[in-house]
Amino acid sequence: MDHLNAFVPGERCTIPGAAGGPLADLSFAVKDLIDVANWPTGGGNPDWARAHPVPERSAWVVQRLLDAGARIIGKTATDEVSLGILGENPFTGTPLNPAAPDRVPGGSSSGSASAVAGGACDFALGTDTGGSVRVPASFCGLFGLRPTHGRLNFRGITVQAPSSDTVGWLARDATTFARVGQVLFDETLPEMLPRTLLIASDAFAFADPAVAEALSPMVNRLADLIGTRRDETLAPQGLSVWKEAQRCLQSSESWRTFAPWVDRYNPRLQFSVARNLALAAQISDGERARAALMRLEARARLRMLLPPDTILCLPTTPFPAPMRGLSISDLALPRERITCLACVGGLTGSPQVNLPGARVDGAPVGLSLVGAPGTDTTLLAVANAFGESY
Amino acid sequence: MDHLNAFVPGERCTIPGAAGGPLADLSFAVKDLIDVANWPTGGGNPDWARAHPVPERSAWVVQRLLDAGARIIGKTATDEVSLGILGENPFTGTPLNPAAPDRVPGGSSSGSASAVAGGACDFALGTDTGGSVRVPASFCGLFGLRPTHGRLNFRGITVQAPSSDTVGWLARDATTFARVGQVLFDETLPEMLPRTLLIASDAFAFADPAVAEALSPMVNRLADLIGTRRDETLAPQGLSVWKEAQRCLQSSESWRTFAPWVDRYNPRLQFSVARNLALAAQISDGERARAALMRLEARARLRMLLPPDTILCLPTTPFPAPMRGLSISDLALPRERITCLACVGGLTGSPQVNLPGARVDGAPVGLSLVGAPGTDTTLLAVANAFGESY
Repeated sequence: MDHLNAFVPGERCTIPGAAGGPLADLSFAVKDLIDVANWPTGGGNPDWARAHPVPERSAWVVQRLLDAGARIIGKTATDEVSLGILGENPFTGTPLNPAAPDRVPGGSSSGSASAVAGGACDFALGTDTGGSVRVPASFCGLFGLRPTHGRLNFRGITVQAPSSDTVGWLARDATTFARVGQVLFDETLPEMLPRTLLIASDAFAFADPAVAEALSPMVNRLADLIGTRRDETLAPQGLSVWKEAQRCLQSSESWRTFAPWVDRYNPRLQFSVARNLALAAQISDGERARAALMRLEARARLRMLLPPDTILCLPTTPFPAPMRGLSISDLALPRERITCLACVGGLTGSPQVNLPGARVDGAPVGLSLVGAPGTDTTLLAVANAFGESY
Repeated sequence: MDHLNAFVPGERCTIPGAAGGPLADLSFAVKDLIDVANWPTGGGNPDWARAHPVPERSAWVVQRLLDAGARIIGKTATDEVSLGILGENPFTGTPLNPAAPDRVPGGSSSGSASAVAGGACDFALGTDTGGSVRVPASFCGLFGLRPTHGRLNFRGITVQAPSSDTVGWLARDATTFARVGQVLFDETLPEMLPRTLLIASDAFAFADPAVAEALSPMVNRLADLIGTRRDETLAPQGLSVWKEAQRCLQSSESWRTFAPWVDRYNPRLQFSVARNLALAAQISDGERARAALMRLEARARLRMLLPPDTILCLPTTPFPAPMRGLSISDLALPRERITCLACVGGLTGSPQVNLPGARVDGAPVGLSLVGAPGTDTTLLAVANAFGESY
């Protein structure tokens, strides 16, 4: 039985890994937006599966992990076609947040986070366009990576917004987290850690004071590992301005992606998802052009902040997971606030790791590391060193 | 078995009528937006029923029909919370149009039209805010009445847009159609028919030429019954301008009606329904004020056109029922065109009857009679005389 409600209903997808591979002792789960050969890709929506053929090939990441010996133990629930950040899905139900059972798990990689946090597997694949690995990692108390945009082959994964889409994973411990990365990036972890840690002062100030306080010991421990620490403003234009740019670009692209399916099938969607698509259809070329400029400015800012040997940290989410079952209006500002902190990844293409380790009101909240594009294994090495420092 | 897919799934609601009443030989069905005591009012949406308690009382119209001896044989499918004109419901499936099985039945009183046209009952109750009785009557080849706004007690019926909502019924034959009216209006039919028939020339020109041609013998027969006939423009401002006004007012009111439910439950809705609600939320006070003025002009126009002893006719729909399963974009213009002809009722509060009797491409299309507010039984008398003239 699936007491977590983390897996897609029906027969459980189980596939053994290749014998003798480096991950032969590990089990993993696959978000149901990622193809596994001969299993339907359900996308968290009953009208998605029926509109799409059962894939004949597994996604590149899935095949690579199977070839490395890891075994699949199931496909996991997701927000409808990846369009959500909280993990509430009215069609398959909301997965349990094992670390805070009365709260949402976060999304859209909700089932993957639930399955890992609940101990059903060693790690799980997710996708992250606007926060969908990092936010559930923060809410469920897991390690989670959003890789550098474009670094991992995206073949066989449901597209949302191509200029922001990435595929990542979640794990309970830093060692497993790093082992998966070594296989997927085909790279060993660097032995030298970065030497400068920037503290994104605007992002810490934007989070709930209790979150900044709870993360403070983690920041101190991280600074001890790294060496130099320095406060810096991440987004001089304002985190909400960066958020608006990311929202505009991501929404526009997701409408372009899903419009043909929506038009043909008139699918059932929860109201908030349908509304966001309908409003995305109204975004003008002028709005898109201004958002694209702001994205260039955000990328320029990151390049200035992150010379070699420098990483930055910020709260992954401004608060722990909201309670389950809140109304649309209760969640309106929280959704926006989450995106104010999560927009950095989608806007700049930088890799970002969530480190678990803090709690507020008994619920997890995570600390994020951001590096320059391409420094994924550096972040994994920091996470690994951080994990060993407990 | 329900080969029509006209009834709501699950146990069939059956209730005997009072013994010896004037409708004791008749069976009827009730649209699932109208309360029947101790049966859930499902509203064509799984998240509507769970948000609303099972009603303890039947709606006024239901009770009046039961008291008159008619028996209930089931509750019927509807477009989601009445928001649709075609009858396609992805949750319960689209009811069969028995008169044209490859076409939609029309909505939102889709199941009621299907049940009557399929012979499952003698008549059926529906609601009509923007065309929801008249359109399925036209598409399924039935008599259907949208009563004068405010004439029949609306207690126990799911509100959509209060300034346009009405409750009406559909029947296969004019006699049954009239008998129901005599009970609900508590009035006998007038013996004198109107003496002047206006032909809404703009509405006939707006319909497909094949429809105008197919309706022509019916118009001639009607003119023979009435006496004087005269061509008149119905909407000097343009039918599309009247439509915009009705759409603006109806959408605004329906958003006001459903917003608390939507906010609290974030319900699953087919995309087109959710989109219309989301766009309705953006309508401004200025747009509403202009639409309210246009409504006053439309009412003034009807008062000028319809002195005592005068009725008006127009095509109920500009074409027969569209095929089942078309895309949102294929249906965009047809939906608007339907509303250009159906807007008169909601905008002016006038009663309107659909007379069956014509076919285009093998599918039914109806002729509408419109009278001044309060002339419901006059229209039923004309329908009755017209029915006998076959």
